[in-house]
Amino acid sequence: MPPEFSETPWINVDVFRLPMTAPEDVSGLEHLLEMGKIQAEDIIGIIAQTEGTGYARGYASLCMQILLSKYLQISPEAVFDRIPMMMIGLCGGLMSPHYTVFVRQQFSQLPPHLSPPSEKRLAVGIADTRVLLPEEYGTLTQVNLVAEAVERAIANAGILDLEDVHCVEVKCPAMTPARIIDAENRGATVVSPQLNQASVLSKAASALGIALALQEISATQVTDDTILKDASLYTERGSVSAGGEQSACRVIVMGNSARSLSRYRVGHGVMNDQLDTLGIYSALTSAGLECRLPLTSEQQARITQVFVNCGADATTAVRQRRHTIHSDFLSGYAGIMAKAVANAIVAAVVGDTMILASAGNEHQGKRGSNLVAAIVQVEP
Amino acid sequence: MPPEFSETPWINVDVFRLPMTAPEDVSGLEHLLEMGKIQAEDIIGIIAQTEGTGYARGYASLCMQILLSKYLQISPEAVFDRIPMMMIGLCGGLMSPHYTVFVRQQFSQLPPHLSPPSEKRLAVGIADTRVLLPEEYGTLTQVNLVAEAVERAIANAGILDLEDVHCVEVKCPAMTPARIIDAENRGATVVSPQLNQASVLSKAASALGIALALQEISATQVTDDTILKDASLYTERGSVSAGGEQSACRVIVMGNSARSLSRYRVGHGVMNDQLDTLGIYSALTSAGLECRLPLTSEQQARITQVFVNCGADATTAVRQRRHTIHSDFLSGYAGIMAKAVANAIVAAVVGDTMILASAGNEHQGKRGSNLVAAIVQVEP
Amino acid sequence: MPPEFSETPWINVDVFRLPMTAPEDVSGLEHLLEMGKIQAEDIIGIIAQTEGTGYARGYASLCMQILLSKYLQISPEAVFDRIPMMMIGLCGGLMSPHYTVFVRQQFSQLPPHLSPPSEKRLAVGIADTRVLLPEEYGTLTQVNLVAEAVERAIANAGILDLEDVHCVEVKCPAMTPARIIDAENRGATVVSPQLNQASVLSKAASALGIALALQEISATQVTDDTILKDASLYTERGSVSAGGEQSACRVIVMGNSARSLSRYRVGHGVMNDQLDTLGIYSALTSAGLECRLPLTSEQQARITQVFVNCGADATTAVRQRRHTIHSDFLSGYAGIMAKAVANAIVAAVVGDTMILASAGNEHQGKRGSNLVAAIVQVEP
Amino acid sequence: MPPEFSETPWINVDVFRLPMTAPEDVSGLEHLLEMGKIQAEDIIGIIAQTEGTGYARGYASLCMQILLSKYLQISPEAVFDRIPMMMIGLCGGLMSPHYTVFVRQQFSQLPPHLSPPSEKRLAVGIADTRVLLPEEYGTLTQVNLVAEAVERAIANAGILDLEDVHCVEVKCPAMTPARIIDAENRGATVVSPQLNQASVLSKAASALGIALALQEISATQVTDDTILKDASLYTERGSVSAGGEQSACRVIVMGNSARSLSRYRVGHGVMNDQLDTLGIYSALTSAGLECRLPLTSEQQARITQVFVNCGADATTAVRQRRHTIHSDFLSGYAGIMAKAVANAIVAAVVGDTMILASAGNEHQGKRGSNLVAAIVQVEP
Repeated sequence: MPPEFSETPWINVDVFRLPMTAPEDVSGLEHLLEMGKIQAEDIIGIIAQTEGTGYARGYASLCMQILLSKYLQISPEAVFDRIPMMMIGLCGGLMSPHYTVFVRQQFSQLPPHLSPPSEKRLAVGIADTRVLLPEEYGTLTQVNLVAEAVERAIANAGILDLEDVHCVEVKCPAMTPARIIDAENRGATVVSPQLNQASVLSKAASALGIALALQEISATQVTDDTILKDASLYTERGSVSAGGEQSACRVIVMGNSARSLSRYRVGHGVMNDQLDTLGIYSALTSAGLECRLPLTSEQQARITQVFVNCGADATTAVRQRRHTIHSDFLSGYAGIMAKAVANAIVAAVVGDTMILASAGNEHQGKRGSNLVAAIVQVEP
Repeated sequence: MPPEFSETPWINVDVFRLPMTAPEDVSGLEHLLEMGKIQAEDIIGIIAQTEGTGYARGYASLCMQILLSKYLQISPEAVFDRIPMMMIGLCGGLMSPHYTVFVRQQFSQLPPHLSPPSEKRLAVGIADTRVLLPEEYGTLTQVNLVAEAVERAIANAGILDLEDVHCVEVKCPAMTPARIIDAENRGATVVSPQLNQASVLSKAASALGIALALQEISATQVTDDTILKDASLYTERGSVSAGGEQSACRVIVMGNSARSLSRYRVGHGVMNDQLDTLGIYSALTSAGLECRLPLTSEQQARITQVFVNCGADATTAVRQRRHTIHSDFLSGYAGIMAKAVANAIVAAVVGDTMILASAGNEHQGKRGSNLVAAIVQVEP
Repeated sequence: MPPEFSETPWINVDVFRLPMTAPEDVSGLEHLLEMGKIQAEDIIGIIAQTEGTGYARGYASLCMQILLSKYLQISPEAVFDRIPMMMIGLCGGLMSPHYTVFVRQQFSQLPPHLSPPSEKRLAVGIADTRVLLPEEYGTLTQVNLVAEAVERAIANAGILDLEDVHCVEVKCPAMTPARIIDAENRGATVVSPQLNQASVLSKAASALGIALALQEISATQVTDDTILKDASLYTERGSVSAGGEQSACRVIVMGNSARSLSRYRVGHGVMNDQLDTLGIYSALTSAGLECRLPLTSEQQARITQVFVNCGADATTAVRQRRHTIHSDFLSGYAGIMAKAVANAIVAAVVGDTMILASAGNEHQGKRGSNLVAAIVQVEP
Repeated sequence: MPPEFSETPWINVDVFRLPMTAPEDVSGLEHLLEMGKIQAEDIIGIIAQTEGTGYARGYASLCMQILLSKYLQISPEAVFDRIPMMMIGLCGGLMSPHYTVFVRQQFSQLPPHLSPPSEKRLAVGIADTRVLLPEEYGTLTQVNLVAEAVERAIANAGILDLEDVHCVEVKCPAMTPARIIDAENRGATVVSPQLNQASVLSKAASALGIALALQEISATQVTDDTILKDASLYTERGSVSAGGEQSACRVIVMGNSARSLSRYRVGHGVMNDQLDTLGIYSALTSAGLECRLPLTSEQQARITQVFVNCGADATTAVRQRRHTIHSDFLSGYAGIMAKAVANAIVAAVVGDTMILASAGNEHQGKRGSNLVAAIVQVEP
């Protein structure tokens, strides 16, 4: 049951996009904390794009935890539990390592010097599922747990209308050898003995959970057997990645709310195939940017961040032109290539390569499409 | 000295862009020859984008030679000598392996049923330098030989005005161990004992030769010491690659001529950086396509081929955003990455990934820029 | 039914191991043909280790076909049909590209100037299955067809005792998109719609065929369901690779025969894990090399060629020490890594890196083992 | 001036080789600390082999620092300053990520219950140079600073005779963009504006410093111009790696001393080329292992650790057999390949893949050779 409007607090949401010179570089955030531009208590979530291999994700996360541990006066482990930190690893092409920090302040009453905006503005909410058992990864149980957590994150954001949700980022647990052994020791069976396949199923179930919460699909359509099998079921507003460091599913929701005083708005669009720049345009106008293609540099300057979920590696051709992502000697890096080309195409529209690209097409958009969410600054 | 206008024959030029399912797949050309759509005698040059490693270039070339050897009734080796076949190896991202066949017919008189177009149309010409000695690679000698060959290729195309030249493709010799030994045996010294560096210098000298022939630079600006050193000297209409199979430099020139009856025109533009889509637009309008961005699908359908010389790997950042092309674990594939992102960005404008992308920035455009040449069909 | 001893002709078998400077380099064989050291008619099979990607295999094969076409006065296609040419692609580490040419002469009577050796000597035989339908790949049908072809190849070699067979090399068809479409058009179903999995099953069925022919397993143990599933069934004397250029399975058998006048013998051994150098020693002594570890350089000089089927990539650890072949950023090249390390270890024993290493563990030895066959010169 | 014998304290040195399941896995050391098997105060140095890219080195180091910070009650930064932690990144083939912890106890008098060994035993010493200015990297200044630090580390180990030094590991500063800017701001010039070349020169100077300290070369042979140029100058007992996290050169020396009560001895040998297993044998016997090749499993069990500095990537052929490490599509990973093959060959002799392999041939052994140091347990 969504909260009544009158119960919803006023919020302000700020967004900081900071470059990294290396996975361990948290100097940008440190500087903002030192200057008092950000209060550590207000940080609600962090989404990063790290270079290097998967290990760099943990490294970046640890460095952020150590930094925030000083400011929050809690242990690094407690920082991890408190703030969802979604590290998207593996860069390619023009992708530019960086992190986005979401900061939220809540006010029980409208601050006296402020007047509410005439339109809905950026709202961000978070929630976690309970810890999942390894044997629950990739199952209907995970679908339902994620759906329920997404609903809580939406409520946490103060968003009342599902149409106002534009981007749901989920980090779910990946399967690990230790988790398989744990399940076996309890006589339980995991969905696949192959680590990668089990993790893919974990992502697939999470994506269906998003779709369910956003009512893009109905509960009757989803069973254990549709997970990763029925490609006609998908969310167009979600992006999922998996990590062995997670034991629960962690959710960040971005949308717009009438109770937000933020100077940003978020929107989304779908690139039907890799060359569909109109899908980027849709996301930008959905976020409130008045523009047409090609954008002016003034319009580009108002785009604060773009999140792209990339689907090139779910295909072997674009507009009937064969590509070699899966057949050539770099086929082991298909996901990197998919992100590199999507990053390039979106960057050429928005004028900036330092945007977030993630791979993985499991129930995240129609096969071969890209999902685009954009945060736009609508007031100075 | 360019030919007098009255001496120039009338020509017709046709362009066939054909997909390859693998380096050895020449079935598209075979079909056109079988159907009589192309006469083997009229083939003036072939430019291919092959997948796989460098060896696939030789493989594709050999398969084309064997095919054309049957139709021309000459040996495969003689085919290689007769028709410049420029194989651009290494695909990445959405790049789609293919080859472009240039066909030219000459008429000493205007064919009676035809009226000359009211504008200049596509003309293609070819020329070779003499065989270079290994010790000449990367020297002023090569610069001058290439410049002279480009001038002959322009004349061969029937182009009278240098402004009408829009794209010069050169394949020059790469250094090989055998060539170093050959030079040593004659007491001569090559520009660099490192194979790769010597080949890079061979490309650099060739690019300066193009710039000289097109009068983009003057002869007084070039010495042995400026080659690969003075980045302020470059052509904006040339693209060079090197191959160990070449012992001379081979030149294909594309431009427009008043004596051409072709239904195509060619143009060029410069992308000042990787995100500069207006450079693509310039090339298209330069070729005679009336359009604005984004293109309609009708406009896209009239674009017959695009040649992009890519410069992303000459930089470490785009618009001050750092990329990891040279620092991450795929840094051994920087050229592939540069081509993949340029291909993606241009493809998103022209609506087609099956365009030609080549890497190598040696005196080919300002550092970090992309050079774009486009062939557009201007009549049905 | 094996041939009666008296029916078996006398044979002489010679083995030439020739380096390649590149996939297209067939100059070593050309020189031997020119010098009359080899008669093209006597060439019975070629096994090559090519660098570059898979395409280099076809390129090398085509260059050999063109060369032999001149000497055999048949078309390049007919050369392919006549002589099994097994191209093992993808080199890594110290692996040294090369090819091994097997030459066989038959005599209906013992040549007068020769006395038969007191021991069995190298015999080589070949056979092909019929062309397989795509839907037969990876099925019991393929198992049985290969088993039958191996039996014929053994007979063709003049080998009477299965214990005398030491190495069976099979090249089987890989699945291709065109073959799947062909099956679908006939209403047939292939074993897997995934190209790679179908090709792996084709190799698995071929390996079981070898095991069946060598009576390492019995026919009752094999069903469609054991293929690639029952890892307890395997050959210890076979090596299989797949190629899209093959439509039948092609077999080369190496063993020893009392009717051979060759100066070589062949033997085999099993490395139980990657570090088991005693398995190499077994192969060498099995071939008749009197030695102990470490070998003297005189002993090493008598080793003419070694064939290693490598199994490192079938494991995640060696002697309980974890490796990162499957988990690190080069995991897309697991087979290359497996070959590189097996090549290095065997090379360190035999003193030569120019030996043949092939990957693929499907029913070829116990999981994680290497199969080693060695040809040794036993008389000057 | 070396310390007088009577001044040298008695020491005991222990060596723990611990597997890592990932760069952040320090659980093995944590367990030993928890159990009291190691006192944190006694840890004198750590050498690790980490998987993943270079970033994993920093990650592993940070995790060790955090762990030891708890036990030493100093900050993680102070741990870094106190204990040299040499992280050797990039695994390939069978290499098994792990770390080696050196523990040293000092006694001013011989402990009453112990009798001194009849032979010299393992002694380990450490030292640092002062912080180097970026413009000093790769210069004679660095050579001399490293030489002096190696001498101090030898003294610190209590080693009196240079012949007793068997392995010197140095971690030196790598060049970074910030360091080049720092030098420029002070009007100073670094040895090369290319980061990689400057770092290679830093390693080269460090290696010459080792050679100088061990009197393998004389001071008159070394000038700024011999660094990385005169390949005839080298150490056969040193291994150098560079890291951007270092600002000084850090040295760990391993040798044998009459004052050591350790149950280990160390020795060294040289593999003249990649296949020279006798070089491994030399190292083992030099360390006191009575054996011949092949080793028995009892002999293998006494080998505690092996350090191999690998030189395969300094060549293009082994025993005149060409390899493709530098020419094939994995040429960007030449160092990984060199380590993978050296690891495999040494592992096949010692029966264990969890040994340390490092790449980099700058003045570390004759071109193409491997340097091997082995620690052997000589008493139970």
